Amino acid sequence: MIDVVLLGTGNVATHIYTAMSALDEVTIIQVYGRNEEALLPFDKTGETTTSLSRLKKADLYIVAITDDAIADFSDSLLFNDRLVVHTSGSVSMDSLSTRNRRGVFYPLQTFSRELDIDFTGIPICIEAENREDLELLRSLGKALTGNVSEITSEQRGTLHLAAVFVNNFVNYLYRVGDDILTKQSLPFDLLKPLIFETARKIEQLSPEEAQTGPAKRHDQKTIGNHLHLLDGSPYKELYTALTEAIGKTYGK
Amino acid sequence: MIDVVLLGTGNVATHIYTAMSALDEVTIIQVYGRNEEALLPFDKTGETTTSLSRLKKADLYIVAITDDAIADFSDSLLFNDRLVVHTSGSVSMDSLSTRNRRGVFYPLQTFSRELDIDFTGIPICIEAENREDLELLRSLGKALTGNVSEITSEQRGTLHLAAVFVNNFVNYLYRVGDDILTKQSLPFDLLKPLIFETARKIEQLSPEEAQTGPAKRHDQKTIGNHLHLLDGSPYKELYTALTEAIGKTYGK
Repeated sequence: MIDVVLLGTGNVATHIYTAMSALDEVTIIQVYGRNEEALLPFDKTGETTTSLSRLKKADLYIVAITDDAIADFSDSLLFNDRLVVHTSGSVSMDSLSTRNRRGVFYPLQTFSRELDIDFTGIPICIEAENREDLELLRSLGKALTGNVSEITSEQRGTLHLAAVFVNNFVNYLYRVGDDILTKQSLPFDLLKPLIFETARKIEQLSPEEAQTGPAKRHDQKTIGNHLHLLDGSPYKELYTALTEAIGKTYGK
Repeated sequence: MIDVVLLGTGNVATHIYTAMSALDEVTIIQVYGRNEEALLPFDKTGETTTSLSRLKKADLYIVAITDDAIADFSDSLLFNDRLVVHTSGSVSMDSLSTRNRRGVFYPLQTFSRELDIDFTGIPICIEAENREDLELLRSLGKALTGNVSEITSEQRGTLHLAAVFVNNFVNYLYRVGDDILTKQSLPFDLLKPLIFETARKIEQLSPEEAQTGPAKRHDQKTIGNHLHLLDGSPYKELYTALTEAIGKTYGK
């Protein structure tokens, strides 16, 4: 049994709390948050506290707070030589205070407060300063998902960058599609089967094999029509940038 | 029963052939192609021909060939006053020869020769010059999918443009993610759950609600780290363009 203290009440903390509360191998013995009201959803299984001086002894402290606050917060913890991990994709393990044993437990997924997440299959990227701590994180990860990888801070930075491309930027392109249709009184629903199929395709084809469209074909006539449709649109530049990038990648 | 002659042997023609061959309401009585070898997969149910002068009389001629060739090809048909449609998202109905009754039958989906497509749920966008032809196209569409919409050529142009954003451009971003990971010896598989969840999210949230990430948060520190990682990368410009576009959309 792994005793965990969860530090944070935000989006990621909420999903970790929900997922870990369901596990036999883990007990969340305490949740810390600065705000009593924000702690209300976390009092189902264990204790909650707003005081760092009341933190219980645990096998693992999971700091699930905003990236910028991780370093200072880990410095403010009042104990030494315990295992403290953060959950961020873009913060190095070294940002954590050296007073404790450091590690990272990064679930590579997009979390919305509104949507439930099934952790099964989600990659969990772990890192720790020593073998024993790494094995504890691996056990915890394996209790949640079949997909646990040991990843260095440098690799994690790259992974987070790639995740921005395939998640944040992709979602923005969905929004552009939505906006373009709305302006012509067409429902966004028309695009959803295409969006799902575009994602589904890469189960069987590499993105390189799956690429289609006027930019890849160097189909100047269609590209010209699209640029004409985009006259005065805020998305014209983006269309050009992406079309040129694809054109370069696929040569003439 | 609708008798169809299919003109073309490419990707879209193949998927239409497979889907329509399974329908009770439709008979593909003939498939035309310039190349005998390319016609081999199409001789399962009816006749094939390489000669325009041997085209049979049918209720509907579906021209599923490359966009640029549609106008000239429709001009080369040797009959008059029959219903001839194309399947393209970006070609206007008016491009078809006026010698026949014109229409469009556009399945809004991405087709790969390698992957089977389930037409159920795929939007089919129809257009025709007269009511009777439109109803024939609607019946045909409904036999394939629950999702048939009458769409003007102008709307279809917009739809095709939006489709380029959410399909071609999105797939390219998958490729960027793949490439970034490969350079760090990380497997693309790590990103797949995130990619599927990003698409799945918009079933329940609008893309506007689903947006997350450093660009939306104006998180200059993370953006700075990413730009540093992208030093010398061909994707730096694209990162900047998308980050700025998201930043503008979500204001300060």
